[in-house]
Amino acid sequence: MGEFDLIKRFFTRPTPRAVLGVGDDCALLQPAPGMQLAISCDMLVSGRHFFPDVDPRALGHKALAVNLSDLAACGASPLAFTLALALPEADPAWLEPFSQGLLTLADAQGCELIGGDTTQGPLNICITVFGEVPAGLALLRSGAQAGDDVYVSGTLGDANLALTHMMRERQEGTATALPPLRLNAADLARARQRLEQPTPRVALGMALRGIATAAADISDGLLGDLGHILERSGKGATLDTTRVFTLLGAHHYAMEAATLLAGDAVRMQVLQHVLSGGDDYELVFTAPPDRAAAVQAAALASGTPVTRVGRIDAEPGLRLLDGQGRLLSPHNFQSFDHFAGTA
Amino acid sequence: MGEFDLIKRFFTRPTPRAVLGVGDDCALLQPAPGMQLAISCDMLVSGRHFFPDVDPRALGHKALAVNLSDLAACGASPLAFTLALALPEADPAWLEPFSQGLLTLADAQGCELIGGDTTQGPLNICITVFGEVPAGLALLRSGAQAGDDVYVSGTLGDANLALTHMMRERQEGTATALPPLRLNAADLARARQRLEQPTPRVALGMALRGIATAAADISDGLLGDLGHILERSGKGATLDTTRVFTLLGAHHYAMEAATLLAGDAVRMQVLQHVLSGGDDYELVFTAPPDRAAAVQAAALASGTPVTRVGRIDAEPGLRLLDGQGRLLSPHNFQSFDHFAGTA
Repeated sequence: MGEFDLIKRFFTRPTPRAVLGVGDDCALLQPAPGMQLAISCDMLVSGRHFFPDVDPRALGHKALAVNLSDLAACGASPLAFTLALALPEADPAWLEPFSQGLLTLADAQGCELIGGDTTQGPLNICITVFGEVPAGLALLRSGAQAGDDVYVSGTLGDANLALTHMMRERQEGTATALPPLRLNAADLARARQRLEQPTPRVALGMALRGIATAAADISDGLLGDLGHILERSGKGATLDTTRVFTLLGAHHYAMEAATLLAGDAVRMQVLQHVLSGGDDYELVFTAPPDRAAAVQAAALASGTPVTRVGRIDAEPGLRLLDGQGRLLSPHNFQSFDHFAGTA
Repeated sequence: MGEFDLIKRFFTRPTPRAVLGVGDDCALLQPAPGMQLAISCDMLVSGRHFFPDVDPRALGHKALAVNLSDLAACGASPLAFTLALALPEADPAWLEPFSQGLLTLADAQGCELIGGDTTQGPLNICITVFGEVPAGLALLRSGAQAGDDVYVSGTLGDANLALTHMMRERQEGTATALPPLRLNAADLARARQRLEQPTPRVALGMALRGIATAAADISDGLLGDLGHILERSGKGATLDTTRVFTLLGAHHYAMEAATLLAGDAVRMQVLQHVLSGGDDYELVFTAPPDRAAAVQAAALASGTPVTRVGRIDAEPGLRLLDGQGRLLSPHNFQSFDHFAGTA
């Protein structure tokens, strides 16, 4: 199958919202008057971001979902995307489910495939996504104010739980030193769903326009991504680890860990897992305490639970409090970095 | 070096034209009122689009140039781009010249780096570029009319000449079955410059707004890229091969080939080379005969020579005429396709 046949067969679709879609040198977009274009770009590499034998349908979903998650963090409404794809071979048995997973999510989010590139090479998926947001209303990392509450959407840790489990099964080492508590089959299936087919929090992000003062999506772990907000805002934060603990997604696992004594080494490991595990694609955001009701209304309207986990401080740095309000040492809590340790 | 340090050191720049640049979940762009956003995306893979040991400065230039060439083909003015980069390792000795080559061209074209992604993996460079064009004035592939003249900018064949020469030197086979005429050192150096650091015809594309009826950039060879115009326009074309022959860039090589008898097998091979060699990043475009003076004025204003090589026909298909006006058989003239032969 040739490059152009491949694009025609799997990746050419009607684009009613774009001025011009796939098939010319450029696509053409015209944002509505008063709207800004929010743009984000993510590259997924085989063996780094996904197992080479991952279900191609799930991979298609995830490749777009991680980009939509960036739009969500800005409060932008999805509009369109480009797809660049390097493939070892043009295999319809892989391309068919991949394109279905990708385009099913695209359709659900009203996000049109308007262009891209295909070439032969080691499997690599690069999506650039475009969203619209009214001028001045984009949620930025830089807007957090001292005294703001810190919120997290949904649950954390499941993606990393599934990844750790799958790496143990493959004996490829472990993503984190997660304690080997019992994980039942239902929790594992749910966790794997979170890893392989995350739900971008687009509706919540849009509902938080004008309410949240800062936001980021949690792709590399809560500590790291909240850290970006703190750095760009020039602020610090204090998190209540008993609240952070309630974010843990896999309930039986959480309950089992919770029965251990506070301060116990295993409990600390689980906490670290929630704080540092990546790939959940939830949102972390800040809002003034007097907007707490508006935050809950946005959560309700978007069908996305949110949990208040701490507060923004004027003093830089991140502080973690245990159940008795005592400071924990954060030196073990590190976020994921794609080049950590290579230089 | 960590991912964030790498981005900060090599790829974070002031972005006066963008609302928001590198460092948040999304970048923000706001096209001027009445402007449409032209978007294109190209992925370059090591060993496929460039030699693994290519000068990283030239590679940085080329990675952006091939994208700017797509903007040129649409008549769009460069605005911004995102860069996604998979690297085997974060090596400053490679990143420094790569980013310099990339950003020198970006600065020269007023094209701001507004975001992207870096990750570990087999070397892969994916750029998505954004340009502005007044609504309704974008040059499309679909607008060619019967009777229009067909033009090509600059010269063709040099990039393929250099590639063939370099592959012969490396004994990696040949890109085309190019006859082994003598190629002097100056021509080879010029040809290699064309291969490794092509000049996107942005100024010409912008000057052709309202004049050209259709345009495409020549990335895969004149026959293939003119073929896209014909397909999208529902038209055919007749090319005068004696004029096509004058497009050949390497002059001594061209003169040597030209001394051979018309119809000679070697001359046919050279012609095929000009028609089918990719990577020159010139423009092929069409315009009505009564706009010939306007086309030449656009060429002069942009400092880019253009050559009329044929005419658009109502009848589909591509016809090649020899010096005596006789039809040549086109069955040997094939364009480059990234997946040709894999399925």
